[in-house]
Amino acid sequence: MIGLGRMGGNMARRLMTGGHEIVAYDRDEEAVRKLADDGAIAATSLDDVREKLGEGAIWWIMLPAGAITEQTIEAIAAKAAKGDVVIDGGNSFYKDDIRRAKALAEQGIDYVDVGTSGGVWGRERGYCMMIGGREEVLTRLDPIFETLAPGMGDITRTPYDRPDGEDWRAEKGFIHAGPPGAGHFVKMVHNGIEYGLMQAYAEGFDILKSKASDKLPEDERFDLNLTDIAEVWRRGSVISSWLLDLSAIALAKDEMLVQFSGSVADSGEGQWTIDAAMEEKVPANVLTAALFARYRSRIEHTFGDKLLSAMRYGFGGHVEMPQ
Amino acid sequence: MIGLGRMGGNMARRLMTGGHEIVAYDRDEEAVRKLADDGAIAATSLDDVREKLGEGAIWWIMLPAGAITEQTIEAIAAKAAKGDVVIDGGNSFYKDDIRRAKALAEQGIDYVDVGTSGGVWGRERGYCMMIGGREEVLTRLDPIFETLAPGMGDITRTPYDRPDGEDWRAEKGFIHAGPPGAGHFVKMVHNGIEYGLMQAYAEGFDILKSKASDKLPEDERFDLNLTDIAEVWRRGSVISSWLLDLSAIALAKDEMLVQFSGSVADSGEGQWTIDAAMEEKVPANVLTAALFARYRSRIEHTFGDKLLSAMRYGFGGHVEMPQ
Amino acid sequence: MIGLGRMGGNMARRLMTGGHEIVAYDRDEEAVRKLADDGAIAATSLDDVREKLGEGAIWWIMLPAGAITEQTIEAIAAKAAKGDVVIDGGNSFYKDDIRRAKALAEQGIDYVDVGTSGGVWGRERGYCMMIGGREEVLTRLDPIFETLAPGMGDITRTPYDRPDGEDWRAEKGFIHAGPPGAGHFVKMVHNGIEYGLMQAYAEGFDILKSKASDKLPEDERFDLNLTDIAEVWRRGSVISSWLLDLSAIALAKDEMLVQFSGSVADSGEGQWTIDAAMEEKVPANVLTAALFARYRSRIEHTFGDKLLSAMRYGFGGHVEMPQ
Amino acid sequence: MIGLGRMGGNMARRLMTGGHEIVAYDRDEEAVRKLADDGAIAATSLDDVREKLGEGAIWWIMLPAGAITEQTIEAIAAKAAKGDVVIDGGNSFYKDDIRRAKALAEQGIDYVDVGTSGGVWGRERGYCMMIGGREEVLTRLDPIFETLAPGMGDITRTPYDRPDGEDWRAEKGFIHAGPPGAGHFVKMVHNGIEYGLMQAYAEGFDILKSKASDKLPEDERFDLNLTDIAEVWRRGSVISSWLLDLSAIALAKDEMLVQFSGSVADSGEGQWTIDAAMEEKVPANVLTAALFARYRSRIEHTFGDKLLSAMRYGFGGHVEMPQ
Repeated sequence: MIGLGRMGGNMARRLMTGGHEIVAYDRDEEAVRKLADDGAIAATSLDDVREKLGEGAIWWIMLPAGAITEQTIEAIAAKAAKGDVVIDGGNSFYKDDIRRAKALAEQGIDYVDVGTSGGVWGRERGYCMMIGGREEVLTRLDPIFETLAPGMGDITRTPYDRPDGEDWRAEKGFIHAGPPGAGHFVKMVHNGIEYGLMQAYAEGFDILKSKASDKLPEDERFDLNLTDIAEVWRRGSVISSWLLDLSAIALAKDEMLVQFSGSVADSGEGQWTIDAAMEEKVPANVLTAALFARYRSRIEHTFGDKLLSAMRYGFGGHVEMPQ
Repeated sequence: MIGLGRMGGNMARRLMTGGHEIVAYDRDEEAVRKLADDGAIAATSLDDVREKLGEGAIWWIMLPAGAITEQTIEAIAAKAAKGDVVIDGGNSFYKDDIRRAKALAEQGIDYVDVGTSGGVWGRERGYCMMIGGREEVLTRLDPIFETLAPGMGDITRTPYDRPDGEDWRAEKGFIHAGPPGAGHFVKMVHNGIEYGLMQAYAEGFDILKSKASDKLPEDERFDLNLTDIAEVWRRGSVISSWLLDLSAIALAKDEMLVQFSGSVADSGEGQWTIDAAMEEKVPANVLTAALFARYRSRIEHTFGDKLLSAMRYGFGGHVEMPQ
Repeated sequence: MIGLGRMGGNMARRLMTGGHEIVAYDRDEEAVRKLADDGAIAATSLDDVREKLGEGAIWWIMLPAGAITEQTIEAIAAKAAKGDVVIDGGNSFYKDDIRRAKALAEQGIDYVDVGTSGGVWGRERGYCMMIGGREEVLTRLDPIFETLAPGMGDITRTPYDRPDGEDWRAEKGFIHAGPPGAGHFVKMVHNGIEYGLMQAYAEGFDILKSKASDKLPEDERFDLNLTDIAEVWRRGSVISSWLLDLSAIALAKDEMLVQFSGSVADSGEGQWTIDAAMEEKVPANVLTAALFARYRSRIEHTFGDKLLSAMRYGFGGHVEMPQ
Repeated sequence: MIGLGRMGGNMARRLMTGGHEIVAYDRDEEAVRKLADDGAIAATSLDDVREKLGEGAIWWIMLPAGAITEQTIEAIAAKAAKGDVVIDGGNSFYKDDIRRAKALAEQGIDYVDVGTSGGVWGRERGYCMMIGGREEVLTRLDPIFETLAPGMGDITRTPYDRPDGEDWRAEKGFIHAGPPGAGHFVKMVHNGIEYGLMQAYAEGFDILKSKASDKLPEDERFDLNLTDIAEVWRRGSVISSWLLDLSAIALAKDEMLVQFSGSVADSGEGQWTIDAAMEEKVPANVLTAALFARYRSRIEHTFGDKLLSAMRYGFGGHVEMPQ
C-alpha cells in the first residue's frame, strides 16, 4: 500500500483485519510507523517495497490524483517486473489509466484502476469499488476486493433473475467494469451523480428554509423545522438515501449549519463527467448545474454580474453600485 | 375514506389492519364493494358517509388534486358539523389548503393537509406523511397517522441529542410540519427534490450508456453493464438510495428498458416547487432543469429548435431540413 | 398622463414634441410643474384630470406595476365614462390586464395594455410598443403610438413579401399584439429574452476575463482586452446587438467595471416568463438560468451551499468551515 | 489561400476586390478554376503554391477544423521557409494553435490564428476577425485584415475616450487579441455567446408560440403573430440584434418554419467554451444549457428519459409505455 492517508490507511487496516499481509509505504514516516504498529510490514522506500513484496508484486497506490500519482507510477514502473500488478485506487482521470495501462502492458505489467466510494465510513461499512483491468488479473485480486467490499450485508437483494447482470461481484459491492480505465470512468460518473443528488437536496432545503423569508407576504410564510423534515423523509419516502441520512445528522446537530462556510470545493470528477457528456453529446443539465453551483458558491460576485449591472445602467439608468 | 383509488384503497386497508374502523366511499361502486369485502363500512353517498360517521367525523379525502378534490371538499363542507375534521391526503396546492382552512374554520371545522409519500409500496412499508393543521387536532389524529406511518422499523436512528428537532413523530415517519398548508408545502418540495434526484441518476446512466457510442473514437469506448453498476452502487457507495434500488430492479429486468416510452409525465408539484423558489428568490437550477427535462422528453422538436435552425441557415447557410 | 417618472415624463415630452396635447398628473407636484413648464396642462387631482380631458378621455397610466397601478386604475374607473380609454403603459402582469379589461368593459370603458421597451433612450430613439386591446380602439390611438414609436428610421427593412405579417404597424415600431393582456404578455417574454441575452454576454465576458486566472497553467493564460473585444464584435460579427453596444460603452469607460456592485435586481417579468413557460410546458433552461443567476448574485452563500458542505463533511471528512 | 469553400472562396474574392494578389489552391480543381476565372493565380499543389508565393510567403489556410487542417499545416511546415507566415483562419481549438505556433517558431515561421465571424454575409459586409500572433507580424499583415474587415462603415462609434482600449484595429472590425491561440480563444467564446443568444430567442419565441396551446385554459390563450413580434422588436427595443434581424427574415418567409427539421448541429466551439469555463471554474449555466438544448434537439428520447419512466413505474405504478 503506497500512500497511507485517510483512505489508504483505513483500507490497509481493513485488509489486515481480513487476514491480508500489507507492506506499507508513505513519504510520511510517522504514518508508516502507525500502520506498522497495527501489524503492517514497514517499508522505507519504493526499493524496499520492491524487495519486501517479492515476485508477482501487487502495488496498490492510494494517492491524490494528478502529478504525485503519475510520478509514483513512473517510479514503480521502473522497479516492477513482469507479472506484477499496479493498482491505482485514487481518483485518476480514466484517459490517464488507458494510457498507463498500454505503457505498462509492454513491460508485461498489469494495470488495474479502482474507483472507490465510501469515504470515512468505508473502513467499517466496506468500500464500494468499480474496477477496470483484465478479467484474469481480477480473478487473482478477488480475495483482496472481497475483503475491502461491504459484502451482501443486510442490504436487500434486488429481486430478479438477473438476465442482464453478468458480474457475481456486484452483489458483494464491487464490479469488474471493463478494461483499464472503465473503473475510474464509472467512479467518475458516480461522483457526477453525487453532485447532482447533493444539489437537489441543497436546493430543496433552501426552498424550505427560505419559506420563512420576509420577501413573502406574512400569511404565506412557514417557519419549518428542517431537522424534523430530514428525519421524516428518511422513513418511507421516495427520496430516502444515504446522503439524506447524513443531512439529517448534520441538521440534528445544528439546524442553522452555522459552522459551515458554504464555500464548496469540487474535485476533478464533476468536471470530467461533463467533459464525457459533451464528448458523447449527452445533455446533462442537472449534473452541470450542480457543478456550477459549487463554482458559484466560492465567488461573491462574478465579473459577469457586474456586466449585467453595467448593461442595466446603460439601458435603464438602474443603479447597482456599492453604497 | 373518500376516494378508493390505488392510494386511498391501500391506506384504508392498512388502517383496517391496524384496527381502525373505516367508512368507505367512492363514485365507483365496485371499489366500495371490494373494500367492504375487506371489512370497511360501505357508504353510498356523502350523505350516507355523514350519517355513518356520526359526530366528530373525520373525513379523509384521497382524490386527484384539482377540480374533483375542490368540489368534494365543498360538498363535504355543506354537510360537515362543528368539530369535524376534513383531511386532504392528495397532492393539493398548499395555497388552496390555506384558503380552505380559513373558510372551514369559520364553520368550526378543522382542515388538515397530509402530504403522503410511499406510492405503491406504502401499504406494506408504511406511508411517510407531512402534515399541516392545528396541533390540538393532530393530537386527536395521531393514532391514525401512527398506523399509516412506517414507524421506526429497522431504519437506523440518527445519532443525536436532537436539540433542533422538536417533533417526536419524525422518527415514526410523520411530522406536524406547521399550520394548514405546511404539510403539502413540504410534500411539494419533497417531490421537487425527487425530480432532481431522478434526473441526476438519469443523466448519469445516460452518460454510462452512451460511452459505447460510435460518436467516440473506438479506443475510448466502453460497453458498460448498467445492471451491474446500479447493483454495486447500492452497496457502500455515497449515492445509494431507494430510487437507486428501484433503478437496479428495472435494469435487472431489462437493461435496455425497451418497454418504456421515455415520455415522462410531471404532476403539479415540480412546477409549484419552482414557483415557490421564484417567490422566495432562491436559485434552483437543478430542480428546474429536472422539470424541464420532463417537458422536453415529451416533445420531438420544439419550435425553438426550428428557430435555431432558421437562424443558422440565415447567417451560415447551414441546412437543417428534413431529408 | 398619470405618473411622470422617468418613463412617463419622457413619453409626455415626446408626445408634446409630436404635437399632442397632454394633461399631466403626478402625486409629486414638482414633476407636474416641470412638465407644465414644457407645455403640458397641469392637473392637481384625478378629478381635475377628468374635467380637463373631457369626453372620450384617454387615461395613460405610467406607474410602477403592482399596488399603486391597481389602485389608480380603480380610482380612474370610478371617474371614467363610457367611451373613455384606460391605458396601462407600465409593466403589469398580463393576467391582471385580462381581469381589468373585463371589469372596465362592463362600464363601456376600453382597457389597453402597452408593453414599452426603450428605457432611458426612448425619448430620443422612440419607444418599441406591444399593445393589447380592441382593434377599433387602437385605430383611434394610432396617432399617439406613431408619435411615440421610433418609426422606420434608418433600420433596414426585412426583405420579404410578408405573407405572414399582418400588422402594418410593426415596421413603425409598435404592434397590435392581440386582445387585452397580449401586449404585456409579449413585453414579458421580451424581458425574459433580455435576461437570457444579457446573461449569455455576462458568462462569455466572465470566461474571457478569467482566462488570466492563476487557476490555469501559466502558459495557457491570456490577458485579454475586453474593451477591444466588445468593440470588435460590434462590427460584422454574428453577436452584434444593442446590448453589446451598451457593454462596449461600459467597458470603454472602465474595463474593470469597479463601480458596479454585481448585485443584480430582477423585475417581475423574468419570473412571470418562467411561470408562463411552465404553464405551457415549454422547457426554458436558458431563460431560467439567467433569472437564477440574478438571484444568486444577491446571495453570498445560500443555505443549500452550507448543506453541501455539511454532507461533504459527513461522508468525506472534508472541512469547509470559516477560518 | 488554401481551401476555397464558402468561406475561403468569398474571402479570396473580397481580397482581390481590395487589390490583393491571391494564389489559390484546393483539392477540388473546379473550385480553383472558378477562382482563377475571378482573377486568382491557380496553383495545382502545395509545392506549386510554394513556388508561386516566393519568399516571405503568407499561407492562409481556410479548412474545416480537425484532421484536415492539422495535416495541411504539417505539409506546409515541411515546405515553408524562415520568414513565412502560416495563418489558420478556420475554427481550430486554441490549444492546437499554441502547440503549432511553438513548433513553427523553431523553424523561424510565424503562426497566426484568425477567428472569423461573418458567415455567408461576410463577403459583402466584411469579416469580424480576432487574431492571435506576434504584434510585429500583425503589422505586416494589417493591409490584408483591413481589406477583409468591415471597416468603420455606418456603425456608430462607441462614445468614449477609450482609456482601456488599446487596439486601433477594433473600430475597423479586427483586433490583435494576444499571442498565438488568443484569436481562436476569443472566437470560441464568441460562438459560445452566440449559442446562448440564439437559445434565448428560441425559448422566448417558443413561449410566445405555445401561448396558443390547448394545454392552457381557453381564456388565457393568445394566438400571437410571431412575424410581427420579431419585426417590432427590431425597432427600438432592448433586444434588437443581428440574430433577431435574421429571425425576422425567417419568420416573414414562413411563420411556421416548416422547412426546418429542428435537429440543430453544434460545432466544437460551444463545447470548448464550456471546457474553458470549467478550467477557469466559471459558472456558465446559460451557455451550457444552450449547448445541451442542441444535443437534445437531435435525440427523440434519451436513455435517461426511459430510466425516469422506469423509476416512476417502480415507485408509483405509473405507466409510460408505448401504446
